[in-house]
Amino acid sequence: MDDDSRTARWGQDTEVPLFAAALLFLAAYATRVLATGLPDFWRDLCWFVMLALWLVFAADYAVRWRLSGQGPRFVVSHAMLTLVVVLPLLRPLRIVPLYEEVQRRRGQPRVSLYARVISYAGLSTLLLGFSGALTVYQAERGAPGTTMHTFGDAVWWAASTLSTVGYGDVVPVTFLGRALAIVMMACGLALLGAVTGSFSGWLMRIFTRESDEEPPGS
Amino acid sequence: MDDDSRTARWGQDTEVPLFAAALLFLAAYATRVLATGLPDFWRDLCWFVMLALWLVFAADYAVRWRLSGQGPRFVVSHAMLTLVVVLPLLRPLRIVPLYEEVQRRRGQPRVSLYARVISYAGLSTLLLGFSGALTVYQAERGAPGTTMHTFGDAVWWAASTLSTVGYGDVVPVTFLGRALAIVMMACGLALLGAVTGSFSGWLMRIFTRESDEEPPGS
Amino acid sequence: MDDDSRTARWGQDTEVPLFAAALLFLAAYATRVLATGLPDFWRDLCWFVMLALWLVFAADYAVRWRLSGQGPRFVVSHAMLTLVVVLPLLRPLRIVPLYEEVQRRRGQPRVSLYARVISYAGLSTLLLGFSGALTVYQAERGAPGTTMHTFGDAVWWAASTLSTVGYGDVVPVTFLGRALAIVMMACGLALLGAVTGSFSGWLMRIFTRESDEEPPGS
Amino acid sequence: MDDDSRTARWGQDTEVPLFAAALLFLAAYATRVLATGLPDFWRDLCWFVMLALWLVFAADYAVRWRLSGQGPRFVVSHAMLTLVVVLPLLRPLRIVPLYEEVQRRRGQPRVSLYARVISYAGLSTLLLGFSGALTVYQAERGAPGTTMHTFGDAVWWAASTLSTVGYGDVVPVTFLGRALAIVMMACGLALLGAVTGSFSGWLMRIFTRESDEEPPGS
Repeated sequence: MDDDSRTARWGQDTEVPLFAAALLFLAAYATRVLATGLPDFWRDLCWFVMLALWLVFAADYAVRWRLSGQGPRFVVSHAMLTLVVVLPLLRPLRIVPLYEEVQRRRGQPRVSLYARVISYAGLSTLLLGFSGALTVYQAERGAPGTTMHTFGDAVWWAASTLSTVGYGDVVPVTFLGRALAIVMMACGLALLGAVTGSFSGWLMRIFTRESDEEPPGS
Repeated sequence: MDDDSRTARWGQDTEVPLFAAALLFLAAYATRVLATGLPDFWRDLCWFVMLALWLVFAADYAVRWRLSGQGPRFVVSHAMLTLVVVLPLLRPLRIVPLYEEVQRRRGQPRVSLYARVISYAGLSTLLLGFSGALTVYQAERGAPGTTMHTFGDAVWWAASTLSTVGYGDVVPVTFLGRALAIVMMACGLALLGAVTGSFSGWLMRIFTRESDEEPPGS
Repeated sequence: MDDDSRTARWGQDTEVPLFAAALLFLAAYATRVLATGLPDFWRDLCWFVMLALWLVFAADYAVRWRLSGQGPRFVVSHAMLTLVVVLPLLRPLRIVPLYEEVQRRRGQPRVSLYARVISYAGLSTLLLGFSGALTVYQAERGAPGTTMHTFGDAVWWAASTLSTVGYGDVVPVTFLGRALAIVMMACGLALLGAVTGSFSGWLMRIFTRESDEEPPGS
Repeated sequence: MDDDSRTARWGQDTEVPLFAAALLFLAAYATRVLATGLPDFWRDLCWFVMLALWLVFAADYAVRWRLSGQGPRFVVSHAMLTLVVVLPLLRPLRIVPLYEEVQRRRGQPRVSLYARVISYAGLSTLLLGFSGALTVYQAERGAPGTTMHTFGDAVWWAASTLSTVGYGDVVPVTFLGRALAIVMMACGLALLGAVTGSFSGWLMRIFTRESDEEPPGS
């Protein structure tokens, strides 16, 4: 009981600053990858910022583990927390707990189930696409025979991959680029299925409700 | 109560002329994009028609807002109305309220839920494909290295994109073309999921009913 | 009542021979398209066979309409019958009524809902792919710049299109070929959604049942 | 009753060794396909190992059939067993009975329905991709005009096919390679639909539960 309330309290106090730190982490990584013209000093700074932020994330994870009073089971029962500590680029996925924390403070009602699943999966897909474009671009840049010349090409590739359209005008050719692409496909397909499934369910509900209640001219 | 009935009345009176105006808007835009051989006078006329129609749409929006008696909440609670004012090319999406208005006058029963979702999402996909092909064609036409030489190519590209087939024989290469394509993919996937999900549900119901009621030779 | 029983009787008597006729129609069309080395006599014969079979289909449609005692409503209420009269290549879609007719005579129980939807949509997809490959091959054959040199290429194109993979190594380039391809995509996506949706539901049921009843080593 | 318990007993005793044999079969096939530099002796050995293991699988199938006391109906009622005897490369699909057998010995509770469907379909997709990449690589290797030069290319092709992305930078060109690819697409699409459908359902349940029970900071 006491542990639970202290865990909840810790979550309430840290959710907002940690989310800001996650965005800073992503920005530092993007700067390091994209701003190739920067002096070495700034590029090293980005690296140090990323390292420092990761230590903060690890410390937060340790405190939550401690407060939970669970043993090794914590790693599995809080799978998303574990994932975003190992891969900090995915940390903005915690935008949903953040949103709920902000809503709780304002005392407003939360949005409907479908809207929450769509916004969660949609934002996750967006983030996955941006992180994937960054990492694949870093792997592909300058490889012989690459078709991914600019970061714009990488974003275009990520969009055509996550939507499973797959034009094939821009494709990764290196081993690392392809391996990252396969991970991105696997995650992206599951998230996409959640978005389309929820949208279909939401549309069904709108049409059902409309036929029951609303005036025709609405 | 009075406001509601006046809103419904306004919707009943304006739905049909506004839909005609929306089709005219789309036709004017298509003419401006496709009829490149027209004298400047007619091309300017298309532009003025589009501007005038948009003012009509904006006026309709303002009247509905006023009649609703809601504050800024109206923008969110009538999200589709807001969307089709900002992007008039999508206005034919209001074909469903139009259909219901026409049905109401005739006093006929409305079709089943699945059929309405399929027809709504199917028509929206069709419209999205046509508008997308037009705007991407306008952006790509004459770009160096383009593979989209005619409007037929643009329609073929739109079909292969919205179905997520993505052959890659025709692809946008400019920044604007690719950005529009990504928006089209995002909308198209959600609509497509609604179509296939509803068709699957409809087929299930047909097979269930058939096994219960109908004679085998039907 | 009398009309209904006569309709059912007609269906029972004609389902099997009409299905044989439908397969013969498809075979004649395939022969005409693929056997380019045949003497003109045989090719003309294929054409006459197709015409004669179509007249049989039209006569069956007329008799059913008459027996139903319905007015113009028949065209809509028996939409599949109407479709397979207009496009006889799709007639084998009536494999499900055929199957039920055969089952009825044998008095065996019918298979489960999921299995029926999967088999129906799967067979329809197969047929759609074969007919689509034939017609698109006929439209593309010999077109300048075509990548569809043999019927094997056309089948490979149809498979990569219906699965929405869309490699793009073989694509239609003529107007007619692309138009047929878009129709095929639209039908294929709906059928595919039905197959994957039903398979997902069937797998869920298998896993649910397994966890309730069966011994672990089964 | 007695037959059932003996069947269950046989399943409990053989599930673990048979799964090891299935992995060995796959390893022997992979060795034969990929290790082209091996002396003939070792390649022949792989062949003999595969043959011997297949005889073991066939013997297991015969014993189960005998113990079941069923007639020819066994072939259909145990469709998965029949499939993995005919195509031993797919035998690791029996990872679910294996998992359940292991769980039964440990007396732990089984995971949730969604998680089981996702893991089953996900692992099946993974295996299908690996086996498909192996067989298609064997068919394509050295074919004139091939784009599949290394096994890495084959894996990349399999990933882009099973996810329905289909870039088209690597495609099979031989008849056998394309035929295997079509089988792989058909199986892959059904499995993929099951994965995305289950993930969507699981996400829905997580969001529903979260809104009912859990503290906001979790």
